[in-house]
Amino acid sequence: MTQEISIQLTTEPRTRPDSEKLGFGKYFTDHMFMMDYTLEQGWHNPRIVPYAPLQMDPASMVFHYGQAVFEGLKAYQTSTGELLLFRPDKNMKRLNRSNERLGIPEVSGDFVIEAIRTLINIDRAWVPTAPGTSLYIRPFIIATEACLGVRESHTYQLIVILSPVGAYYSGGLAPVKINVESSYTRAVQGGIGHAKAAGNYAASIKAQSNAKKGGYSQVLWLDALEKKYIEEVGSMNIFFKIGGKVITPAINGSILEGVTRASVLELLGSWNIPVEERKISIEEIFEANAKGELEEVFGTGTAAVISPVGELYWNDRQVLINNGQIGPYSQKLYDTLTGIQTGRLPDPLKWTMPV
Amino acid sequence: MTQEISIQLTTEPRTRPDSEKLGFGKYFTDHMFMMDYTLEQGWHNPRIVPYAPLQMDPASMVFHYGQAVFEGLKAYQTSTGELLLFRPDKNMKRLNRSNERLGIPEVSGDFVIEAIRTLINIDRAWVPTAPGTSLYIRPFIIATEACLGVRESHTYQLIVILSPVGAYYSGGLAPVKINVESSYTRAVQGGIGHAKAAGNYAASIKAQSNAKKGGYSQVLWLDALEKKYIEEVGSMNIFFKIGGKVITPAINGSILEGVTRASVLELLGSWNIPVEERKISIEEIFEANAKGELEEVFGTGTAAVISPVGELYWNDRQVLINNGQIGPYSQKLYDTLTGIQTGRLPDPLKWTMPV
Ligand SMILES: Cc1ncc(COP(=O)(O)O)c(C=O)c1O
Ligand SMILES: Cc1ncc(COP(=O)(O)O)c(C=O)c1O
Repeated sequence: MTQEISIQLTTEPRTRPDSEKLGFGKYFTDHMFMMDYTLEQGWHNPRIVPYAPLQMDPASMVFHYGQAVFEGLKAYQTSTGELLLFRPDKNMKRLNRSNERLGIPEVSGDFVIEAIRTLINIDRAWVPTAPGTSLYIRPFIIATEACLGVRESHTYQLIVILSPVGAYYSGGLAPVKINVESSYTRAVQGGIGHAKAAGNYAASIKAQSNAKKGGYSQVLWLDALEKKYIEEVGSMNIFFKIGGKVITPAINGSILEGVTRASVLELLGSWNIPVEERKISIEEIFEANAKGELEEVFGTGTAAVISPVGELYWNDRQVLINNGQIGPYSQKLYDTLTGIQTGRLPDPLKWTMPV
Repeated sequence: MTQEISIQLTTEPRTRPDSEKLGFGKYFTDHMFMMDYTLEQGWHNPRIVPYAPLQMDPASMVFHYGQAVFEGLKAYQTSTGELLLFRPDKNMKRLNRSNERLGIPEVSGDFVIEAIRTLINIDRAWVPTAPGTSLYIRPFIIATEACLGVRESHTYQLIVILSPVGAYYSGGLAPVKINVESSYTRAVQGGIGHAKAAGNYAASIKAQSNAKKGGYSQVLWLDALEKKYIEEVGSMNIFFKIGGKVITPAINGSILEGVTRASVLELLGSWNIPVEERKISIEEIFEANAKGELEEVFGTGTAAVISPVGELYWNDRQVLINNGQIGPYSQKLYDTLTGIQTGRLPDPLKWTMPV
């Protein structure tokens, strides 16, 4: 796709929120990117328009059959005022894997990245600059055909919205409490768990809300079949440091292949730290803890980058990890990743892309 | 809820489609019902308005996290011109079960039924009258809060749209070919398969589309864990008549509890036909067939009411059922159910409700 992106600028720019009040995904910039898909024209009419409500036929398939996928990535401002994207090509590849699973037509990743860069440059003034803040980028695709038959839609919209987001940890990195979910299931082999599809998150809301009520910040999912093997956290992949080795669940068709996960694996490898991607049971974690070998646990994801886990609850069992303190690997990974993302550290693997 | 439904009639009534061209879910009537939910006001502002596009913030949670549920039921015109709903209370109970699973606030079933009746009376002229046609009613609830955090939305809309639909079988009942899906999964215990949630259908689209390409009209799902036990069809529950007994998969947390399924079970019971709700493996079906005991297979659902299955494919194995002809139970159930639904037959169990 080498189509020209048409641009219509807002005549009513909005007030930008205070840097301290940003939170996550609550404020949106003045413009958005859109393009349409029809069977006849493929993806067409790429355009940047003022952020505004979508006009959606009530019979639009997305409302009824949830045919929708999304991505999430961030732009960071460097100390020299440059803006950097972090591995956007990986998000685009995952978007197309999600599309494939959901029966949504492929998009040109390069073109969408170009659209994102154009959009960010237009809303440049919205990029927050305080430490830890960033611009969250949310591309998503929704089925727009007005028809109640259960099948692939014949029309879609791809939309990109931008949200200035606050520091995930206002007081620096802080360990979280996580509940291991043993009744509800998020995804199963043969399903859509490896896709970033709307329906996966709908399936997770109830367990997440129960966890919150119990004082946990997230849910750790177990496999659907035996409720034995560790999958991932609500919106993070998970890593364990046991007896000097770092272990993370292997990509198995039911967990999301995180961009941060891949980057952590590459960093650990480059530091010559032994890493295993494999099946790991929750029992193994509790046993490692009993033997005094459970050294660190951390989640990885775009929102928090690295999220140290201080406590894990599994039914009536509990482990306190590294005395509830941030472990050295978590800290080093966090510092290195955020260092690369914000241009503080060199980027030997060319993970960042200027906007 | 005893709120007054406000009514705003269209000033631009649309042309109604030809009875022969109806199909399923392609045309919508002149009006729709809506009401809103907020944490402060609960469900409020019930209103009937002209059918028109919804104004949706692009960050509305339904687009990103698929928090959406729906129902499907029909109104039938009797020979005396009366309109009948079929067991709408059962749809409302299921809607609230779906709500519960998805973290969506409960609605008053009685109030929504009242709203549906009011809406149908306003769009009375749209109800098709040709044999086999009906008015399909689609209530649905979508998460409307504009926020990218993964959690329950704090605002929702419940909407009811109406679609005049054609006869499912234009030339009378006709057996279908069904493919047993052995790679993809629809749902699993602990998930949302028992809810009528948008995400379940998104997960089914790919397998359904592969089946269509192979010349099958639907997919028969197997259990996620062992790919051994029969679950249900794309949008139908499934029944087998084996050696004089009727068997259907038990409600197990991963299949939808169909209103037609429940009605078929009650009818068979009242005819003193032995019925079993239990686990049934696909192997058992093929074995029964080998022994000459597989007498009938049929699907049950609001769209087709009863759908005889003429052929089943499972990997490279195939069974032809009852010589590809409609069986006597399928026919009798179809005649009885449609007879009750359209007022041709008495309704001893009070399944119908006048609009
Ligand atoms: C379910 C799930 N797992 C893992 C991740 C982490 O992926 P990434 O590192 O690409 O952000 C996310 C989201 O971002 C997610 O939603
Ligand atoms: C997945 C699924 N199973 C079964 C059914 C049958 O349910 P009912 O008889 O209530 O229409 C439907 C839909 O209508 C469905 O979508």
